[in-house]
Amino acid sequence: MAKDKLWGGRFNAPTNEFVEQFNASIDVDGRMYREDIAGSRAHARMLGKQGILSDDDVKQILAGLNDIEQSIEAGEIPFTVALEDVHMNIEARLTEKIGDAGKRLHTARSRNDQVATDTRLFLRRRVDELQVRIATLQAVLVELAREHADTIMPGFTHLQTAQPVTLGHHLLAYVEMLGRDAGRFADARARMNQSPLGSAALAGTTFAIDRHATAGALGFDAPCANSLDAVSDRDFVLELLAACSICAVHLSRLSEEVILWMSAQFRFIDLPDAFCTGSSIMPQKKNPDMPELVRGKAGGIIGGLVGMLCTVKALPLAYNKDMQEDKGAVFDAFDQLEGCLRVFADMMPGMTVHKDAMHRAAASGFSTATDLADALVRAGIPFREAHEIVGRSVAWCIEQGKELHQMDDAACAAIDTRLTVAMTSQLSVEACVAARDHIGGTAPNQVRKQCDDWKQKLEADNA
Amino acid sequence: MAKDKLWGGRFNAPTNEFVEQFNASIDVDGRMYREDIAGSRAHARMLGKQGILSDDDVKQILAGLNDIEQSIEAGEIPFTVALEDVHMNIEARLTEKIGDAGKRLHTARSRNDQVATDTRLFLRRRVDELQVRIATLQAVLVELAREHADTIMPGFTHLQTAQPVTLGHHLLAYVEMLGRDAGRFADARARMNQSPLGSAALAGTTFAIDRHATAGALGFDAPCANSLDAVSDRDFVLELLAACSICAVHLSRLSEEVILWMSAQFRFIDLPDAFCTGSSIMPQKKNPDMPELVRGKAGGIIGGLVGMLCTVKALPLAYNKDMQEDKGAVFDAFDQLEGCLRVFADMMPGMTVHKDAMHRAAASGFSTATDLADALVRAGIPFREAHEIVGRSVAWCIEQGKELHQMDDAACAAIDTRLTVAMTSQLSVEACVAARDHIGGTAPNQVRKQCDDWKQKLEADNA
Amino acid sequence: MAKDKLWGGRFNAPTNEFVEQFNASIDVDGRMYREDIAGSRAHARMLGKQGILSDDDVKQILAGLNDIEQSIEAGEIPFTVALEDVHMNIEARLTEKIGDAGKRLHTARSRNDQVATDTRLFLRRRVDELQVRIATLQAVLVELAREHADTIMPGFTHLQTAQPVTLGHHLLAYVEMLGRDAGRFADARARMNQSPLGSAALAGTTFAIDRHATAGALGFDAPCANSLDAVSDRDFVLELLAACSICAVHLSRLSEEVILWMSAQFRFIDLPDAFCTGSSIMPQKKNPDMPELVRGKAGGIIGGLVGMLCTVKALPLAYNKDMQEDKGAVFDAFDQLEGCLRVFADMMPGMTVHKDAMHRAAASGFSTATDLADALVRAGIPFREAHEIVGRSVAWCIEQGKELHQMDDAACAAIDTRLTVAMTSQLSVEACVAARDHIGGTAPNQVRKQCDDWKQKLEADNA
Amino acid sequence: MAKDKLWGGRFNAPTNEFVEQFNASIDVDGRMYREDIAGSRAHARMLGKQGILSDDDVKQILAGLNDIEQSIEAGEIPFTVALEDVHMNIEARLTEKIGDAGKRLHTARSRNDQVATDTRLFLRRRVDELQVRIATLQAVLVELAREHADTIMPGFTHLQTAQPVTLGHHLLAYVEMLGRDAGRFADARARMNQSPLGSAALAGTTFAIDRHATAGALGFDAPCANSLDAVSDRDFVLELLAACSICAVHLSRLSEEVILWMSAQFRFIDLPDAFCTGSSIMPQKKNPDMPELVRGKAGGIIGGLVGMLCTVKALPLAYNKDMQEDKGAVFDAFDQLEGCLRVFADMMPGMTVHKDAMHRAAASGFSTATDLADALVRAGIPFREAHEIVGRSVAWCIEQGKELHQMDDAACAAIDTRLTVAMTSQLSVEACVAARDHIGGTAPNQVRKQCDDWKQKLEADNA
Repeated sequence: MAKDKLWGGRFNAPTNEFVEQFNASIDVDGRMYREDIAGSRAHARMLGKQGILSDDDVKQILAGLNDIEQSIEAGEIPFTVALEDVHMNIEARLTEKIGDAGKRLHTARSRNDQVATDTRLFLRRRVDELQVRIATLQAVLVELAREHADTIMPGFTHLQTAQPVTLGHHLLAYVEMLGRDAGRFADARARMNQSPLGSAALAGTTFAIDRHATAGALGFDAPCANSLDAVSDRDFVLELLAACSICAVHLSRLSEEVILWMSAQFRFIDLPDAFCTGSSIMPQKKNPDMPELVRGKAGGIIGGLVGMLCTVKALPLAYNKDMQEDKGAVFDAFDQLEGCLRVFADMMPGMTVHKDAMHRAAASGFSTATDLADALVRAGIPFREAHEIVGRSVAWCIEQGKELHQMDDAACAAIDTRLTVAMTSQLSVEACVAARDHIGGTAPNQVRKQCDDWKQKLEADNA
Repeated sequence: MAKDKLWGGRFNAPTNEFVEQFNASIDVDGRMYREDIAGSRAHARMLGKQGILSDDDVKQILAGLNDIEQSIEAGEIPFTVALEDVHMNIEARLTEKIGDAGKRLHTARSRNDQVATDTRLFLRRRVDELQVRIATLQAVLVELAREHADTIMPGFTHLQTAQPVTLGHHLLAYVEMLGRDAGRFADARARMNQSPLGSAALAGTTFAIDRHATAGALGFDAPCANSLDAVSDRDFVLELLAACSICAVHLSRLSEEVILWMSAQFRFIDLPDAFCTGSSIMPQKKNPDMPELVRGKAGGIIGGLVGMLCTVKALPLAYNKDMQEDKGAVFDAFDQLEGCLRVFADMMPGMTVHKDAMHRAAASGFSTATDLADALVRAGIPFREAHEIVGRSVAWCIEQGKELHQMDDAACAAIDTRLTVAMTSQLSVEACVAARDHIGGTAPNQVRKQCDDWKQKLEADNA
Repeated sequence: MAKDKLWGGRFNAPTNEFVEQFNASIDVDGRMYREDIAGSRAHARMLGKQGILSDDDVKQILAGLNDIEQSIEAGEIPFTVALEDVHMNIEARLTEKIGDAGKRLHTARSRNDQVATDTRLFLRRRVDELQVRIATLQAVLVELAREHADTIMPGFTHLQTAQPVTLGHHLLAYVEMLGRDAGRFADARARMNQSPLGSAALAGTTFAIDRHATAGALGFDAPCANSLDAVSDRDFVLELLAACSICAVHLSRLSEEVILWMSAQFRFIDLPDAFCTGSSIMPQKKNPDMPELVRGKAGGIIGGLVGMLCTVKALPLAYNKDMQEDKGAVFDAFDQLEGCLRVFADMMPGMTVHKDAMHRAAASGFSTATDLADALVRAGIPFREAHEIVGRSVAWCIEQGKELHQMDDAACAAIDTRLTVAMTSQLSVEACVAARDHIGGTAPNQVRKQCDDWKQKLEADNA
Repeated sequence: MAKDKLWGGRFNAPTNEFVEQFNASIDVDGRMYREDIAGSRAHARMLGKQGILSDDDVKQILAGLNDIEQSIEAGEIPFTVALEDVHMNIEARLTEKIGDAGKRLHTARSRNDQVATDTRLFLRRRVDELQVRIATLQAVLVELAREHADTIMPGFTHLQTAQPVTLGHHLLAYVEMLGRDAGRFADARARMNQSPLGSAALAGTTFAIDRHATAGALGFDAPCANSLDAVSDRDFVLELLAACSICAVHLSRLSEEVILWMSAQFRFIDLPDAFCTGSSIMPQKKNPDMPELVRGKAGGIIGGLVGMLCTVKALPLAYNKDMQEDKGAVFDAFDQLEGCLRVFADMMPGMTVHKDAMHRAAASGFSTATDLADALVRAGIPFREAHEIVGRSVAWCIEQGKELHQMDDAACAAIDTRLTVAMTSQLSVEACVAARDHIGGTAPNQVRKQCDDWKQKLEADNA
């Protein structure tokens, strides 16, 4: 009953049973036990140094916390919803173990700054783990891109054949996206790496605490500058969910392409059996479940962001219980996104690339039309006119069932006297690709250069 | 390994271990075991009647399914991710139990129509359970409204005192909202109550099945009219999530009000101890955690809707694995919403209403100004002029620190000669409330009439 | 300045200039002028009948409103932000025109019930117009489906070839979706067709109004039963936005498919020039802009729903200014969705279908594998074993570069002695399709039956 | 007709009339004319320097663009939907003006890199303007905070009185939030400040362009490293929309508080008449429309983010028409957010603060309970016991209708022998506030220090 709760002094009636369960967050925040214990250690040591706790109390608390941490990791401490959350579960256990010293640990602290601190610490660790996943997938894609620096495929806009590109170039587009994702997570990490500890309920505490000490001990860059903000701020959750959402959108786009490429109509690639499943009824099916799931999970991650924006949107300061929903959303987003990154990093190296099919597709659909227009421009014709001339050439070819490089003198002359077989005959996807030889272009040596740049960057980040 | 999967015939390599776990849905869809078994029963019986299965096979299948259902309910069948989902877990178990007959159950069926059928059955049941929760909360609010049919409180617009209303009238606004919610769930239920069974993978089956028979046996109104649509349609998930979101928005609004009313500044109500919690640091705190949580959970439910809209938005027909994410979102929305409805139904009857504080608040803030304007109109003054005259009266009162009913002859005359003490002196919140005596108005006898209407309606629905 | 506003009596300072503009809604709600005038007419007539206004006042008001409506339609009345919204713009103009009678129109009314009434009336009309658009697109698709009742194409799941279906069957899946959309709009229309008029600010009015009379005059089914709910309810906006979102998701799915089908890799269809655009640089390009735009606009419509859910989520009763944002979101959703439906209804009849390419695709990818398994089942083999045997057959075919119907006796025997050439040799996509001849199945005569059913239904709705 | 379009060479039929309008983006992207012209200038100059255009052509183009820019600013060029977008409108006008040279401008360029460049340039400018708005509001709040560094008000958690804080401290929490917003916009700006120009359609161009030159001329930090990514990337739109959403959430929270504070129940503040409006029916009303609108607009901004995440989520590379929807969403978000920031910066200085009401509220509700517990801790009692003792004291006070500082010896002794009148008698809100005198705490001199820090920072940023 409420009277038994650590906060129950002023209550006359027990907590409603369903409420106890509805209210509890231990199923979600139990994962932060290490961070909760780390925070308590830093807090206790600081209280000791400031003379607020005796050395003996601090020693007992530290020993008790060590024991509890080991017990939790050994699976020996079952958390209970009656104690609501990870903070109360651990504090109650500590007091059970060491008595009065345990009851002193919460001096100059509130659950409000405690949960804000734990969550930041936990998410900081998750960001660091995610960065490794991102870099791993980037490295995989860079390796693949180098291997396919001159594998020619059709580049699409509007899903219509546009111009030939190299598969390497295409894959590196995703390395760029993931690079920006890493940047966003790094920025968010830097912004959130400030310590709420010492903000207490919302206004600070009457004890002579040293917030720099706890901030430093926990690896924060500084204490949060305003205690009210420190306990009511969930920007870091929102910003991380936004970063997760954008990253998930990138993986969803890559998934969309992998699914397309593996269709019978594209037949550009095949995914390894280990990453596909079959059908309960159709014996021939081999389905690209993994990219489909990744694409589907992007929706859920975006939903998590929306939910939290909705929830925080109209809350007055400072802490409100609505905020308890933050952890479910953001923990799930990290879990799902990590899984997605991992699946792609494991799956992509095993992908079979059907170079012939890609090349065939690249060579059809008048993909070299722009290069023909460029040739006309080089002969002195304004681009808009050149574009018009080639447009009419394409219309003629469609009618005749021909390709541009098959236009003979008569055909050229009929379209425009300035159009020559010398121009049409030299069109090839290899020439197209090779000619786009400037920074960012699709020419194989530009692709190799991009690979080198990324390899160096990824190694530097890792060093 | 994939070769061991029920669909593994054409595969050469085992499923990647992490993929097996990432791909599995059993943690979520295991809850549908009863519906899965019910669907299999109906399917088997129909196959028997159509001569596609022998009577003996059907008998064995039905017995086997009965055993399995009992074992699951007794907690004796641990589901495994290696078998992916509830359908494969049950089918594998059945075959283990009864051999060849088990291998015949999936004749003329695919997981695609099976999962669509199970999900509709499961959600149909959840809708029916939710309707009871909604009606229960409505009944609680109607009871409260009757009790407070003449409890006067300030009505707000823009959170500024507008006109006096009765608490009963205010509570009945939520009964109306919940009534529309019930209507939305009923409409969604009717729309989704069609049977996908027999659609097989996407095109129907070559066996001479009787789709009307299975539809009837499972309580569906009819078979789905198009097999491709039947397996790729997730409208019912989207529509239910939308209905859940709107209902959650209503509870969020009620929560917002309960929280406001319980603040020290309003002091209109007090919530029972059993529905509040305290603070880890501030011994005096009694926090309205329940309405705050309900308000917070509305965000998550909206997020679930958004996630599914995103996910379905660009999927080609027919089934795609992305759709597997549907159940997590919608099951969670129902769980959360049911909890929210339950908490409010349990909590509201225990609410203490501070009638004096409400009345005091209703009588201040010039809440009777509209009635003064109406009195001027009755004396022949156009409403816009009356409005202007009262506006100036209010300005005068603010300056003088008076209330409208305290204006004397001189004051009235100074504002406008047509304004009289006879008009100002009769202003009272009781008169204001009583005067709004038309359908939908806040007069106590209108409130009682609304209560009667709702009581009758709720009893009729329940009969 | 504020003192000049119709509500300015109690104000001492003018409205800030930027605020005037930021606050005004006339740019959005000006579109509701017809509904605003219709509401005022009904209100004035009722006030007359109840003896609250004199007959002469009513006559002047009605004449004045007629003039104003004509002037607005003739583009002669420029709305102004200084008068905030359509209601104040019209009332001010009326008073300018007819003097005191104009100042009497707002008796027993508030902008709160007025705007709620106008918005319902306006959206009711928009729903009716949208229903015509939906039915038109359905009729177009039914016609196309009939034309292609036996055009064979590959059915996909996971974008992998699954089983042959007919194009007619595929298109009818969208007719089903649109049918549910129409149902949702109809349900929403019925639910919202209640009159807020007479609810006044939030509590009703002191005048002896007849709410049934105004409700009836405006085509509402009944007056809203609770005045507080009537002015603060925006469920109808949320429900319509949800219905718009789901309908937009359907069109987005159809767009996705049309875009895929028009790609060089599928080459199933071609869209008419009139619905495509070219590229500024690539002369050969013909891009399916219309389905792409429709797919893109679905995002915006979903965004509109989310915005409103967010906005309403934590508002206390009754009216709050936040609600003013409702019209922008829902009007835009209707505009966009109407455009999308119209574009598809205009575009689809001009689509060129490449039947050969579709047939070729349907015949590859072992699309008949399920039928081979079904043949084995008919020979007495349990389905799961049949599935496994065919799975191994497919693996063999892939290795040998053969199709299932090319398996000879030796090949069959090597896989399983029960597999015979008699079974494999009869496999054809025509047979596959024809065999799925039950309700909802893809067989041509089932497709024709679906077309007949829909045609009848659409004509009945239209009658 | 399509043949008249700049891209119409291969087309045989005119564009459908409604399609022309549905497809056009000029209503939205017309605002980017300055950026489009700036991009064309840089491109033309580079083409000249590289010898791709003649000096004379470049000169004509620059002169022509100057003329067009002036004409647009003078309102003399009506944009037309027949020319689709701002790019085609300007190019067509240029060619009309200067002939062949105009037709040469698009050499080595595509609308794909052009629109990506223009949008980045335009949004970069909008970000810079928004930063000024943010800093302005911060400066306003810092000034207010300094003025109210020792104005005592109740700090709330769960909207229940928690502990006394100063209004200055409370306002500075929002300065912190806005500081993080500014950081997010700065990070997004840095990340997006790379030049897509030269990426052409998606693969680069065959001309020997100098991408560093155009990047430098347009103030970009570097060219985008991958051309495919450069034209298909809309991360910057998503990231800016996310930053806008979080900032809007902050303003929504501040709005929520201002609305609460201005309610009759709180009566903490009054907003100036110039920022409020009245009621059409209730003459006494003065409504806080501005914060309500700001709170409402946050929903729409979040909706814009969601829409774009949905839209981009499943797009294959590279450019797809769906992306055209990006500008409407993000431009609107900037417009709305700028308006919100401006309104608050203008409104807050005119806010009247009712210090007495705030103080009274701060002194009630047992807001000093934590300090009493702290006093017990200082007397050697473990915090948890102290918490329990004070909890019981509060329960006693509620029963007796007393405040903590009114507890006499007997009362103290009855609760716990260690509780003394010396402890209870010294409780005051002033003491509470003054005692929280550490970094981030609510003590007036800490608040002043925060003000100094922010003032310095804002001036430094501005220098």
